[in-house]
Order: sequence, then C-alpha cells, then structure tokens
Amino acid sequence: MLKLSPSKDALTPEEISFFNAAFKRCARRIILATTLAGSGHPGGSLSSLSLLLMVYALAKVDPKNPRALDRDRVVVSHGHISPGVYSVLCEYGFFPEEPFLMEFRRAGSAFAGHIEQAVPGVEWNTGNLGQGLSAACGMAMALKLKGLPNKVFCLMGDGEQQKGQVIEARRWAVKFGLNNLIALIDFNKLQIGGNITEVMPQKIKEEIIATSWNLFEVDGNNFQEIYQALSKALKGEVTDPTKPTAILAHTVMGRGISFMENDPKWHGSALSEDLAKKALQELGFAPEELDSLKEKRKNYIVSFPHQPHDPLPVKIEPASPVIYSAEKKTDCRSAYGKALLNLAVKNNLSGESPKILGLTCDLEGSVKMTDFKKHSPSAFFESGIQEHHTASVAGALSKEGFLVFFSTFGVFGIDEVYNQLRLNTLNKTALKVVCTHLGADVGEDGPTHQCIDYLGLLFSLQDFEIYFPADPNQTDHILRYISLRPGNIFVGMGRSKVPILLKEDGTPYFDENYQFRPGYADWIRKGNRGAILSYGNLMPYAFKAWELLKESGLEVSLLNIASIKPFPERDLLEVAHLKNLLIVEDHYVETGLGARIASFFGIKGIQVNLKLLGHKEPASSGSPADLFRRAGLDPESIAQAFQDLINV
Amino acid sequence: MLKLSPSKDALTPEEISFFNAAFKRCARRIILATTLAGSGHPGGSLSSLSLLLMVYALAKVDPKNPRALDRDRVVVSHGHISPGVYSVLCEYGFFPEEPFLMEFRRAGSAFAGHIEQAVPGVEWNTGNLGQGLSAACGMAMALKLKGLPNKVFCLMGDGEQQKGQVIEARRWAVKFGLNNLIALIDFNKLQIGGNITEVMPQKIKEEIIATSWNLFEVDGNNFQEIYQALSKALKGEVTDPTKPTAILAHTVMGRGISFMENDPKWHGSALSEDLAKKALQELGFAPEELDSLKEKRKNYIVSFPHQPHDPLPVKIEPASPVIYSAEKKTDCRSAYGKALLNLAVKNNLSGESPKILGLTCDLEGSVKMTDFKKHSPSAFFESGIQEHHTASVAGALSKEGFLVFFSTFGVFGIDEVYNQLRLNTLNKTALKVVCTHLGADVGEDGPTHQCIDYLGLLFSLQDFEIYFPADPNQTDHILRYISLRPGNIFVGMGRSKVPILLKEDGTPYFDENYQFRPGYADWIRKGNRGAILSYGNLMPYAFKAWELLKESGLEVSLLNIASIKPFPERDLLEVAHLKNLLIVEDHYVETGLGARIASFFGIKGIQVNLKLLGHKEPASSGSPADLFRRAGLDPESIAQAFQDLINV
Repeated sequence: MLKLSPSKDALTPEEISFFNAAFKRCARRIILATTLAGSGHPGGSLSSLSLLLMVYALAKVDPKNPRALDRDRVVVSHGHISPGVYSVLCEYGFFPEEPFLMEFRRAGSAFAGHIEQAVPGVEWNTGNLGQGLSAACGMAMALKLKGLPNKVFCLMGDGEQQKGQVIEARRWAVKFGLNNLIALIDFNKLQIGGNITEVMPQKIKEEIIATSWNLFEVDGNNFQEIYQALSKALKGEVTDPTKPTAILAHTVMGRGISFMENDPKWHGSALSEDLAKKALQELGFAPEELDSLKEKRKNYIVSFPHQPHDPLPVKIEPASPVIYSAEKKTDCRSAYGKALLNLAVKNNLSGESPKILGLTCDLEGSVKMTDFKKHSPSAFFESGIQEHHTASVAGALSKEGFLVFFSTFGVFGIDEVYNQLRLNTLNKTALKVVCTHLGADVGEDGPTHQCIDYLGLLFSLQDFEIYFPADPNQTDHILRYISLRPGNIFVGMGRSKVPILLKEDGTPYFDENYQFRPGYADWIRKGNRGAILSYGNLMPYAFKAWELLKESGLEVSLLNIASIKPFPERDLLEVAHLKNLLIVEDHYVETGLGARIASFFGIKGIQVNLKLLGHKEPASSGSPADLFRRAGLDPESIAQAFQDLINV
Repeated sequence: MLKLSPSKDALTPEEISFFNAAFKRCARRIILATTLAGSGHPGGSLSSLSLLLMVYALAKVDPKNPRALDRDRVVVSHGHISPGVYSVLCEYGFFPEEPFLMEFRRAGSAFAGHIEQAVPGVEWNTGNLGQGLSAACGMAMALKLKGLPNKVFCLMGDGEQQKGQVIEARRWAVKFGLNNLIALIDFNKLQIGGNITEVMPQKIKEEIIATSWNLFEVDGNNFQEIYQALSKALKGEVTDPTKPTAILAHTVMGRGISFMENDPKWHGSALSEDLAKKALQELGFAPEELDSLKEKRKNYIVSFPHQPHDPLPVKIEPASPVIYSAEKKTDCRSAYGKALLNLAVKNNLSGESPKILGLTCDLEGSVKMTDFKKHSPSAFFESGIQEHHTASVAGALSKEGFLVFFSTFGVFGIDEVYNQLRLNTLNKTALKVVCTHLGADVGEDGPTHQCIDYLGLLFSLQDFEIYFPADPNQTDHILRYISLRPGNIFVGMGRSKVPILLKEDGTPYFDENYQFRPGYADWIRKGNRGAILSYGNLMPYAFKAWELLKESGLEVSLLNIASIKPFPERDLLEVAHLKNLLIVEDHYVETGLGARIASFFGIKGIQVNLKLLGHKEPASSGSPADLFRRAGLDPESIAQAFQDLINV
C-alpha cells in the first residue's frame, strides 16, 4: 500500500505513475464486479476512483487493523459506488479481490450493493443519499472529544448535494469547529436523471461558501491536484483553519473507459459482457478473464467473514437514584432532566473527555436538558432546527464510546427522522432517543405537534427497545437502567405534570426497592373482574377510572406497561385469565399497544373480551384534559367503557 | 379593510398612520389571546405583525369569499405565530375578534395553537417548521398551470431557515420559474434557544443568493420599507423577473411592547395577567378589559364554524383499460407507467392546463414515468434528490384541482417523508403516492433501499387508503380506480417482473370483467384445508406454494389482499372458518398485514390457527429469489409452513 505524507508540495512522477496504474487495476475490478453481478454502479465508481485512491493513500488507516482506535475515518456518502470503494480497499490490501469479485451483490455477502461496515475499511453503511456527511460529523466530533488528532474524510456525490440534510450538516460542522473534517465532492455533473443542473439548478460552490467552509476546486481526475488540495487541507493551509474544508472535484462519469465517459446510463447499469470485455481491453487487461471468473462465480459459496462493527463500549457509573414523593407533582420530563444531570455528575468529569452526550434541536428547555448543558457544556450539542442531521450525527456519536441522548418532541424525534433512525439501526448505533410531548398530552400546540403514532413507527425499527414511564419515579428508574444498556433505546413521555403513582399504603409505587425489569408489566392494583392496561400519559386517568370502578363495587386489576418492547408476554398471558381487558392509551388506536396486544392474543389463539381505547383521529388544540375527554379517554369514559365491556 | 395597490412608489402618511394604528389593535389582540389562553407565541407574532399587515393589504384576498379561485395565497410557515395571523385576519374582516379571543387554543376550536385552514384566510396548516415554503411552491405552481396571474406570499421564521427542506424548496421554485412567489422572512434573530447565530451559524442572506432568488433586505417593522419591497416584487422590478423573490425583513421579537422586545422568553410564553395589563396600557388600551374577557371566556362555548377546506375537485376521464396476457411477463411498475400515460392521453390535452401531474425524485426511469413525461412535459416535475420538499409540494398541488402522483422508491416515498405525508393529511390533501421497489424485492440495492416497513408506517397515516396490486393487470385496474377517487391513496409495488395471475382456465384473473373493489379480497383459488393469504410481491411465490400443496393432495384457498386499507373484513371473517391461515408478505413480520389480521381476530375474539411469514430482519443485498429463500419465503418454505400449521 502506497502511503503518502501530506507534507510534500507535490507528488513525484513515480507516485503519479503508481496512481495511474492503480487506477487501471481498480477500474478493472469495477468493470468485472458489476458485469459479473449483472448490476451495480460503475459510472460513479470510476468518477470517484481517483479521489478514493488518494484519500486512502493519505488517510491514517491500517488494512491489518481497520478498526484501530486512532485511525482516520473515510466515510463514503454515495454508497452506490461500492464497486469503486471495494476496488480501492482491495488495492490497498484490506482484503483479497477474489471474494469481492465473486460475492458482490449476492445474498448474504458483505459486499453489498451499497457499502456496509461488514466490509473491512468501510466506516458507515450508506445508500440513502445525504446522510453520510452527518455521520462524518459525528466521527469528527468524537475524535475531538477524545483529543485524537485524526481526520475524517467524507466522499460525496454531486447529486446528493440537493438533499437538505447536507446543508444542515455543513452548518453543524462549522458551529462545532470540525476542522478535522474534509469533504470531497465527486462533481461529475450527472445524476440518474441526467445533467445535474437540468435535474435541479444548484450552485454547489456558492452554497458551500455560504456555509463558511474552506473550499478547493480541483480536477478530480488529476492526482497531482487532488493531492495538493488534500495536503493543504490536512496541514491546515486553508482560509480559516478553524473550519472544515470541502474539495469540489470536477470529474468525469465513467472516467477511463472511452465509451462510458459522460454517459448517465452508466450511473446504475453494468456493462454487458461484450462491452465489459471491450473496457478490459482498453484498460490493458485480458478480456477472457471475464469468462473464467463468470464460471468460477457460479459455484462460489458466499463465505467472506463480515467485519464486526458493534459500537465501542462505554463504561458508565450509574446515576444516583431520585425518589419523588407523593406531594411533589412534577412531569416526567423534569425527572429525565434530573437523571441526565445525575449521570453527567458521575460520568462527565472535569479534565476528562465526557462520556454522556446530549443533543437537541432548539428545544433544550422543553426537553429539560438545561441542567445537563450547564454541567457539561462541551458535551451538549444544540443542533438547531435540523432534526434530520441531528438524528444521524447522534447515531454516529453513539458508536464511538459515548452514551448519547437525543431529545426533542415526538413529532420531530420520530416522525420527522424515522428514516434517519432506520439508517442508524442498519449501522448498529446505540442511541438513546428520549422524546417528550408525546400524544395529545402535547395539548395546545395541536395536531401538527401531536405524536400519536410513535409506536406504529417505532415497532418498525427492529432493534429499538421502547419504554414509557408512568411517573417521575419510574422515569428515573428507567433512565438509570438504560444508561447501563447498549443498543438503540427509545424512552417516551408526555408534557404534563403527573401525580406520583402510589401503592395502597400511600407510598410511591416506584420506590427505592422497585427494580425496573424490561419485558414485565407492573401490577399496580389487583382485582378479578378484569383489567385495565395502560401506560405513560394515561396512567393517571386509568388510575382514576380504576378508583371509580372500585367505588362502584368492581374490583379490577390495573397494569402499567412501561416496557412496551420487550413485550411483557408473561404478564399478558396471566392477565388474559381475567378475560375482560381494556387497553387505554394516548395513541392512535389502530397502531398502538392495544393493537399489538390484540395481535399477540390473535396469534396465540387466546380468546379474551378485549376493548381498545385510544385516538381515532388527531385531537385538536386544547388542554390535555379537554382533549382526552373529547376522545373518550377521561376517567369517567374509561370506567364506563369497562362497564360496557363486562356487560356485553 | 385597507386594500393597497402595488403600483405606487410609496405609502402616504395617512396610510402609514392606518398601519400604525392597526398594528396596535392587532398587538392588543395578540396579548389578550395569549394571556387569556395562558399559552401561545406572542413574541414572534409581534415581530411578524407589520409584515402580515402589509401582505394582507396587498394580497388579492376577499374576506367575504376567502376561498375564491382567483385569490392570492398567503402561507404562514411559522404557524406558531397564530395569534398574529388571527389578529390580522380580524383586522381585515375575515371574522370578528370575539370567537378568536374566546376560543384561542381551546379543544375543538378552529383557532388552534398552530394555524389551521379551519380559520378563514388560512391557506395551510403549519407548525412543523420548514414545510410552508414547499406548500407555497405547490400553490404558485398550481396558479401557473391554471394560467392565473395570482401571487403567493410565504411568511417564514428565521429559525426555520435552518431546516434543509427550505433550501430544497428554494431550488425547486427556481427550476420551475415561480416568479409569482414572494417569501418574507421575519428576521428577528431569536429562536427558542436564543440568538439564532449562536444556536446555529447560518448566513441566511448568502444562502438565498446562492439559490439565485431575488432579494430585498428591509426593516421589517417599517411599513414604508415593507411596502416598497413588496411593491417592487409584485411589479417584477427585481434583478431577475423570472425568479422568485425573498424579502429579508429585519425585525424585533416582541416588537411594540417595551419589556418584550428582544427577549427570547416571549417566543413561546404568554404574559402574566399583570404584564398583559401593562402591555395593554403601553398600547393605549384599557387594561381592565382583560378581566372582563377572562370572565366571559369561562362560560364561552366553542362554536365558531370551521371553514371547509376540501381539495378542489378534479374531473378525470378514465384511462383505457389494458389487459396483459399470460405470455407477457412484465413488472407492475411498467403497468403503472402505462396506466399513467393512458390517463395523461385522456386528460392532459394540448392547449389546456393539465389535470394529471407527476412528480419524482431522480428516479423517473425506475418508477416508469418516462412516457408520461414525454406526453405531458409541463405536467411532469423532476424534483431532484429532495424528497422532503417533493412530498410537501405534491401534497399542496393535490389540493388545487389536479390528480397528483408522487412516485419514488418506498424508502424515499414513505420512510424518508413520513412526517411530510402526515402534515399533508392534516391539510386534507388528495395525493396519490405510488411507490415502487417495495420489500426485499428491491434486491441487490440492499437494506438501505429495502422498504419492509411500509404498512407499519402507512397504517399510522389515518386517512391513507392502501392498495398493493398482485400483477400488472391488477395494477392497471387499481390505477384506473384511484384516478377517479378523492383523498390520499397509497399504491405499492415491487421491482421484479411477475407472472400474470391466471384463473383455472388459464386466462388472466384480473381481466376486463374484473372489477376492483376496495375492502374485498380476491379468492384466487378455493380449497377447504385452510388458506394462504398474500399480496403483491409474494403472490407469485404464494401461488407456487399453493401448487405444491395441491400436488401433495392439500386443497387450500389462496387469497390476494390487494385492498389492505380498507381492510377486507368480510372476506377475513369468511376465511376464518377454514381455521388454518398462513399469511405471507414481503414485509417486516411485526408490523405487516399479518399482524393486523391477527389483531383483527384478537379483537373479534375469533380463534384461528394462524401463522405469519415475513421478514424477521432486513434482508441483505442479492437477487430477490435468494433473499426470499434466506427469509423462508420461497414457495417450498411457504408450503412447508402450511404443512406445519395443519400438523400442529
């Protein structure tokens, strides 16, 4: 592997020769891999190839130890150029070319159509355009927080500059001084739909300058020019060394194969075998190779081991528990803020790099992150009204050995960024998404701010655990629990102040002896005429309904389902014996917990007398109590619904 | 109502006096409404107030006929300044002030915390920042398509300039020549988190210029300056009259109330009663008024009628039916493209404004819109890799008397823009979202491009109908059906070519006599040992499994569920009698149709022997057949699963 230092003024002619030859070797692999697979993206792979070759030559990466902690990071945001990326990684010894050529785009292989971390040298799974720069920002910030001098290179397509998330990321990088971040844009002027200016007029250069980045403009197929720009960027020889640097690299789609150049057709189509042979000949390789490799591929078994890419571990000191007494009516948000502060006190020690990070989007006060921010200013990231970028950057940070909390309202932290969270899960992040203002409990802000679909969406994010505390005490318990737990976790809460849930003896239900157990329900009260199951915002209402029923002589059980996923199967099987079950939630009734419980019983073939209460439509703008009443979710309506249920 | 003409060079002193007095009257209402409600956003309402007053004075709107077809449109993107908007609409006679002051932020009222079309004069429900300009683009485009000379004014906050969707909208407006669009930015330099530059460094002016808009910079609390900029914009006296114009209006948060000015605290908090009285006094009004209004509000019943805001109707000539014969193996995408073309042929007539519109995001060829584009170039909107904006602009267009199709891959048309679709539904749009490449059927593009969660998300969009054709014939039937239907509708399909589904006599199942009926399943084959239920991508696999079972002597029913929502209740109740039900889908098993059917049976208390087959995790990158095999969804595995089911 040719390793270059950025310290020279220019490449030697020998070095340029090496790169020219390497270009041809990699171009060969790109053509072979795509034609053998019968699909893929050769055009952009070739236009980005010179950039890739130079970036990996300069990046501090070790093919023998591709996950070294002090490595530079190379993020390729336009993940469809996987043939180019894999070819260069082969060239530099990350893996032999055979498994790549044999397995590319085959089921179960690491060598996927869009790059994945399963391949050594790949730092982030990309494919949905416009998210890579956000991930790169997370890595660059992580390096800074750890005091590492490493750099992050982010290669991007030109078409994806159209995505709004890209400019959000650019601004964030400026705000947080990511001068260790270099973005290289493959400016080949073509996207699937043709000329990028015809598809969407965009002055990429002017937009970059408007966000105060340093900018170099180079011939992106000229190794000398790429080297010199990268060298200056790495040495800080830029207009403003406190800011990140972009390299706008003018390139040619399909570069190096005469009949492919500047033809958008080759963005996403493999060459036919005939054309591939012609291309191989142009590059100076034997065309027959294609036939023998094709034969070999037929019987090749997908077997290249996937590179593990779990998040770096983080060792957290548990926060001190807090018990809220019955007299103190507060909201779960404040209990979250307090728990977060307590975590920071124990883990973000002065003179050391912080372990707990918090991000929000212009809602610091509402999500109660202010005390955390005051305690750990360098660990707090006010990210502006830029939720898409923030969800991605938070995900990237969560892989780097930090416990990361991303907090905003439910509509912004789930509905608006669902796809960013989805890409996070594919990247095996370990993000703690704590959303407040869920449900119609958001109140007067009205339907646009009402997240009554959180479960419908979160259930689709395969690896997210879902918790919803019933009161401030349970909030504290759950926060302390998840702080010690890896993986992606969602914690939801409403906006309103809620009473402390009490035992029959009048002391807090979730007291110091309570142990939060995922996959279990809390049997708040026991009775044998049936059960009310609820969680979160509506537990106080369900509790009052329970009282009303008791007053009317009906002894029913009251279950709190704070652990929504993992699903409390055992408790549900037990409560099914009570036959009459009423599920009450501040959620759209079609996609909430009730529907899931019904589905559970349906699959198990368990017959119960089941009724689901929730929202049938978005509520309006008003006080939560009024909205719940209009939706038939006030205590009287809940109690009546239970009466109706047993009188059927 | 003072109506101004843009033709003058300047306002007269009398006019300025009117505006100064109107400002105070409106400021009074803002203070009263928020303090009476105990919440709301007075600060931004006051900073935007002068802009609002001037825009409505110049806009061609008629308070007596606020939905006139040839009106100008005023979109307020920062919907939290509802007190300001309602105050100005009162001032200009859209409604009396009493219902506003009495009902503001009360459950069931039109006068919601974020503006809603239920209020006369409001054009678009906003609240989630960054979407209003996209809606305004849709309205401006609609006016152009209809040949109307009207203008669209879009008021925006400065904080929301941070949202990536805003720059997407700006570029789109330039591409499509929306010189009838004027955006006014309330540049008060404060957002919830404080100074906007500290929250997120952004050079708003430079960013606007980089997108080639015309720009005026004014004192946004100076009526003369606002008038002159708007007058020039309306007269086309701008640098480039083919482009839209932005007015960057420097304002003061809390303008007009000495102790509120420049304090971000008043972004989202109402004044206390004492402070409100002080404010009223400053404005020259009697402070005691607050007390009497407070009394009155206590017993005031919410009753102000909601303004209807259904989409404009569109009269569509049905497309000619197409029947694909058994010999022709094609994909549903191509059948969609053909149906779309046929609709265009009948409805987009030369010399008339088009009735059918199509939008995509750099995937025209993949979603088969090319023939439509060739037939109706002026009705086709290549919107670049800007899905957020495109989903919103398509929604706005769909309200204006066009039949609008938005097509892209499922991950982009659902997962990425879920929240934009949600806001569309709150705005009662009538958008046809036709997504291709759903499921693991996307194949080699791999997990980032795999939408296996479409139902989990779409079920949460309360008003979306959901259809998933089984083959090209059913695709054609469904497309013709939805073209005549109002409301938001989703149609999904995979990527692969599929065989034509046949009757037992070998002729197409969905032939010319077939009638697509929402809420019904297709009984493809009948048998009494149980049933396989499937849809879309996996119908060919389910059919083969049915054949395997038949060969092994098991006669089972095979149901195709193309109408997923409305839900085919009757058919499910009928099929439940067969007891053994296997549901097979190219979807995440936890949130798909199977889970919904299980939930349906669970709620009904119907015991069936039920098994769900689907994805337990994202598939990898490979051929669909390989991916389905790995997920246990190949015909042999499906048949075996059925055998296992009846052998339990």
